[in-house]
Order: sequence, then C-alpha cells, then structure tokens
Amino acid sequence: MNQKSWFTPEGIEDLLPQQAKPLEFYRRQLLDSFDASGYDLVLPPVAEFTDSLLTGTGSQMATETCRFTDQESGKMMGVRADMTPQVARIVSNRFKDRKGIIRLCYVGEVLKTLNNKAKGSRSPIQIGAELFGDSGVESDIEVIHLMLDSMQSLGLKNLNLSLGHVGIVETLMNNAKLSTSQREALVDILQRKAIPEFTDFIASLGIDGVSTKQFLGLMTLVGDAPDVLEKAQFVLNQKDFGFEPHLNRLNQIVTSVSMHYPQVKVHLDLSDLRGYRYHTGIIFACYSVGQKLYPIAKGGRYDGIGETFGLSHPATGFSMDLRSALDMLDKEPVPVKTKVFIPTSNDLSLVDAVKKLKAEGYRVIRQLPNSDLPEGSLKLEKQNSAWVLVNA
Amino acid sequence: MNQKSWFTPEGIEDLLPQQAKPLEFYRRQLLDSFDASGYDLVLPPVAEFTDSLLTGTGSQMATETCRFTDQESGKMMGVRADMTPQVARIVSNRFKDRKGIIRLCYVGEVLKTLNNKAKGSRSPIQIGAELFGDSGVESDIEVIHLMLDSMQSLGLKNLNLSLGHVGIVETLMNNAKLSTSQREALVDILQRKAIPEFTDFIASLGIDGVSTKQFLGLMTLVGDAPDVLEKAQFVLNQKDFGFEPHLNRLNQIVTSVSMHYPQVKVHLDLSDLRGYRYHTGIIFACYSVGQKLYPIAKGGRYDGIGETFGLSHPATGFSMDLRSALDMLDKEPVPVKTKVFIPTSNDLSLVDAVKKLKAEGYRVIRQLPNSDLPEGSLKLEKQNSAWVLVNA
Repeated sequence: MNQKSWFTPEGIEDLLPQQAKPLEFYRRQLLDSFDASGYDLVLPPVAEFTDSLLTGTGSQMATETCRFTDQESGKMMGVRADMTPQVARIVSNRFKDRKGIIRLCYVGEVLKTLNNKAKGSRSPIQIGAELFGDSGVESDIEVIHLMLDSMQSLGLKNLNLSLGHVGIVETLMNNAKLSTSQREALVDILQRKAIPEFTDFIASLGIDGVSTKQFLGLMTLVGDAPDVLEKAQFVLNQKDFGFEPHLNRLNQIVTSVSMHYPQVKVHLDLSDLRGYRYHTGIIFACYSVGQKLYPIAKGGRYDGIGETFGLSHPATGFSMDLRSALDMLDKEPVPVKTKVFIPTSNDLSLVDAVKKLKAEGYRVIRQLPNSDLPEGSLKLEKQNSAWVLVNA
Repeated sequence: MNQKSWFTPEGIEDLLPQQAKPLEFYRRQLLDSFDASGYDLVLPPVAEFTDSLLTGTGSQMATETCRFTDQESGKMMGVRADMTPQVARIVSNRFKDRKGIIRLCYVGEVLKTLNNKAKGSRSPIQIGAELFGDSGVESDIEVIHLMLDSMQSLGLKNLNLSLGHVGIVETLMNNAKLSTSQREALVDILQRKAIPEFTDFIASLGIDGVSTKQFLGLMTLVGDAPDVLEKAQFVLNQKDFGFEPHLNRLNQIVTSVSMHYPQVKVHLDLSDLRGYRYHTGIIFACYSVGQKLYPIAKGGRYDGIGETFGLSHPATGFSMDLRSALDMLDKEPVPVKTKVFIPTSNDLSLVDAVKKLKAEGYRVIRQLPNSDLPEGSLKLEKQNSAWVLVNA
C-alpha cells in the first residue's frame, strides 16, 4: 500500500506534543477565566442530527458539514462544523425550566468538509462563551469584554476590534421595501464585499433617492469608530429612519471598550454582513496586528436561533479556534519540567520518593532496561537505603 | 417540525454543567499525572482517512466507524471509533527519527455507529497513555501501574485487575497446527466465551491428545491469579510447549501488582481474547466492584500495529472512557465557588476589585439590568469610593 495513504486529509492535522502542550495550557486558562466570570461548561457531542446542527444557520453551514447516516435511526447525522447551534439547542431543550440569564462556555473539535485556508483551519478546536436571556447592550458589552480579556490572558498584544451591526443593512432594506429576492442578492453582494457590483445593483433597484443615497453612503461608513459614528449621523440621517437604536448601541460599546481597553483600536464597518448566517444584531471580531487574514476570535448577537428549537432566547457570544491561534501564541507558556530517571524496581521505598519528586514538579520517568539515559540526565539512586538525586 | 427532532441520536448525549465540570476536573488530573510520568500529549484529529483508522484493527472497528466521503480527495474518511490506531500512526509517521522509548498520552471524543450499552458509551471521551519501543515486561508493568494509579487518583476504590495473554491461545493454536480458518473460528468462539461450542469444536478438530487436553484445560485457567498460575504449570505442562515466557511474564506482573497494590484483586483468564483485534501479548482490564458490565479502563500490548504504518514499534498502553466513568466518580470533586454579583458599570475602579475577587477564588458575575439577584447572594457595592462585599 502506498505510504501516502497514511497522511491525514488536506487541512486536517495532528497536534504533536510541541503544539498539544501549549494548547492544553491555553485551553485551561480560557475555561478557568470563563468559569470565574460565571460561565458554566457544557460539552455537546461531536456529532448529532443535521436537523438540529443546521437549523437556522443557513446554507453555508450545510455545505460545511460532513454528513453520514445514523445506523440507529436512519436519519442524517453530521459532525459539527460550529458548536454555537449545539449550545443554543442545549439552552432551548435542556434548560427549559431555568429563568433569567444563562451563561455557558464550551470547547471541542469541529470539522469542515473543505479546506479553505482563508477561513482558517478545516478542523478547528473551538472554544467560546455564550450569554442567553438578555437583549440589552450590557450583555454585548460583557461578551466583548470577556473576549478581549481572554485575548489578553493568552498574551496577545496589539489587538483590533472590528464592530458592525446587521440591523443597519436590515433597516435600509426595510425602508426601501426590498423584495425577498432583492434582499438575498444584496446580502450576497455585501458578504462578498463586491463594491462595484453593489453600486450597479443599487442603481438597478429603482428605489427612492433617499434610500439610494443612504445605501451608497453605507460604503463610506468604514474606519475608525469615532469617525464612522460621527459620519453616520450625517449619512444615515438617522432620527427618522430607524437607525438610531443601532447607532446608539454601537456608540455605547465603543465608549465602554475605549475606556476599558484604550490600547485596542476599534474599527467600524456598517456594511459588514460577515456573520449574517445567523446573527441578528451586533457582530464583532478581534484581530491581532500581523495576522489579518482571519480574526482570532469573533462573535455577535443571534437572538433568533433558539426559536427553531422551540424556545427563543436573546443570545450573544463569541468563539475562537485554539488551533489557529497557536501560531500567534508563546510556544512555551510554562517552564519545561526537569526529568528524573528512576530504575525499574519493585523496591517499595521508591514509591514515596517518586511521589515527592512529582510533587516538587519533576517529571519522573522509568528507565526501562536496554534504554539509554540522555546525557546530563538526573537519576534517582539508592545510597545507604535512601533515594538520592544524582547526575547520570 | 416535530419537537422530537431536537433530541440527540440514540446513545449520544450532551454533557451539561453538572457533568462537564467534574469531567473537566478528572481530565486535567489524568493528563497531569501522565505528564508527571513522562507521557507527552498528542491530539490526533477527530476524523481522518479510514485507510489509517482501520489498519490492523480488524473487522469490528470497521463496523463501528462512521464514514463519509472526503470532499477534498474523494477518499473515505471516518470519525475515529478508537484513538489507539491514530497514536500508532503518529509514532510511525511523525516520530520517525526518534530512537528509543516514546511515551504518549491523548484525550478526545470518539464515536461509534451503534449504541451498544453492553460495550459502554456510543460517544466516549477516550483518554489514555501508550508506551512505544520496549517489548519487555517492564513496560507492561509501567502501563498497568499507571492505569491503577490513575484509577486511584480518580478516587476509585475496590478495584479488580483482570489479566490475560493472547500468546497462550496463539501458542496452543501453533502447537496444534490449526489452519487459518480453524484459527478464525476458534478465536470467534473464545471471544463469545461460548464454552459448550468450544468443547465440541475442539473435539471436531482431530488434533492430538496432548493439544486437546491443553485446549480443554484452558477453560479451567480462570480465577484468582496465584491459583491460576499454579494450575497452569500442570495443565499446560509448560516447559516443552512454548508457554513458559508467557506464564513468566504474567507471573512478574502479578508479583509487581500484588506488592504495589495489595488491595487490588488480580484475576487471570488465560482463554480471554477480548482485545484480540489488535493485541499481541498481555491484555488487561480494570473493573470497579459494583460496575461489572464493562471495564473502567483497559489495555494491552499491540506490538504489530505500527508495521502497517511503515515503522514497527513494540507498544503497550491503556485507555478509558471518561464519560462512562463519571457515573462512578464523585460529582463534586472541587468545592463550589461562591458567587459575587457586580453592577454593570463603566467605573474603571471596578476592574481591579473584580480581579482581586477572582484571584481569591470567587466567581464574579455581572448583574445585568432587569435580572434578579438570587436570594442571599453576595454583591459588590461602592461605599465611600471603595468596593465592598455586601449581602444582596
């Protein structure tokens, strides 16, 4: 058989000790910080029925999900391509009787059908936090703070926050009374950021002059947050058109982030529909200077998703891929432990000596017969009925 | 759409906070203890080509593996039903240049096609450790000690160790010069522990009297380790028949376990072929009194597996399913943190107060507007420009 057959599929890779060890460290750091902020851990299964995995997430997720037939039920199952819908299902189905705010965090492997490097790993290790039950700006702020705190706890510096609100385009489309097919075409154009096409498309719609002007002006509402917010007052001529609550919310978030994270640059893009597949309000993404291809972490509000699971909750949250993030993080976040070799022996006095060494932070490794000791190693040797550390 | 559609597939379940939190605790405890004994963490992907997933593992694994087509290559991929073959692939392909002993540990979700409760969870969270590069009894002993230490660190008491050696049946079959189809039929019978069928089958083979006697005697070699080892000297009449090295190895393991774990009852079954799909030597399983349906942890030697990946290593290891183990473990291994509620506020002096509380071990939760404080809660309140803990 061809040696090549032992390679893993395109874009799907092993994490060897030099990656797995720091990844485990950062994983624990994030989960502990989520826990300290009141987020409870849930672990949904790696695969479940596509009915629930794909609900409300739109066609993109459907093409991204690896599917197979469940031999127990004959129904289609999928390996999750995103854990957010799973957590929404859990809240709607498993927390039915819980009133008020629910804070959950999660971590797990996800898998995508295709290897699209521009979108990050094909097999991310997704970790994230979600807040259910509050539709106010305060929960958007909480989640964005949690994300920025998390990035800082990972040692990431020079962060940019990119912020948008899908309600802006939504309101523009409502005001212009676009048909369903016009909306779909427009969203597609905006998701591709195809600006010349956008201009032509708006002109072809036959909508009134004010709406046309606002649509075209939208393309200028990109840049440093304070500038964009100021310009938006003029471009969207907000008071009469329903943009005010969205712009107010953005303004409150920008104010809070600027106060708490003065070193984080906040960037606004009011035409951004990146997360349109299920987001319904604020959307955000965190970039590290030097890694602009895709965000380190991203999230947003998705108030609708629970409805398809029978119980609707307002929801906002963020997630990141620890696998992709590894490239940007310190490869050795904890000091390497010193190894101590011990003989293979049935001497029971060795047991306590080993326990003591491990408690002191050593790695204690049994030297098997016929194996060499690395030069300069420490080993445990019995001298006058006591075990002592000596150089090998 | 039917509400039922939101259930997860048969045998595939969410881990909610009350399970996920202790699971995460035990996961860390095991990984840390593996690390302290020199086992490096690897994280193979959740899915890969079936070519490598199923190599050398026999037909049982093939029926257990959920498969789909890789859209990048058109080849068959599978969600892993066992991580051991993945780790063997990693050693053979990714550690080619490393000489000597390699110790690896791993953790991850696995998935099976069918829900067979007698075999444990359909979606285990597998955690394990493997030692490559040594064929001696010392590495079998190291791995069995590591397994028993792990079980004890999980708080499990009243452990039984079940021990076997596939070489015994192998040697019997060689001595009796059985054909390939006779071997397959015999292995199948032994795996099903179909004793009446076994007796008839042996009689039908037309083998010599000594072999027949040894085969039939095999069925009596089950029970407390010292008894069985003593009886085996007589039943297998060992010196001339090639059983001696296997019985010596078993004897050394029994001696070491009895010395180090006097409270663990060791049970021998020389006809056991439970792990025959890829095991080649010692096989073992750890049971907890009160949970006899399936072992908590199991493992054995599988010297052959690396060969199919182009580089053969002797190997021995063990693994367990953390999800199934949860039922037997303390549900609250760490004290519950006290919650402190804080107001939603842009007051920057709150930031340090929160940091301090978290460092002291509190869970600090933002009280969102319009949400109720649980009765008797602690909250942080600003009094004379200082934040103080008060009862809500």
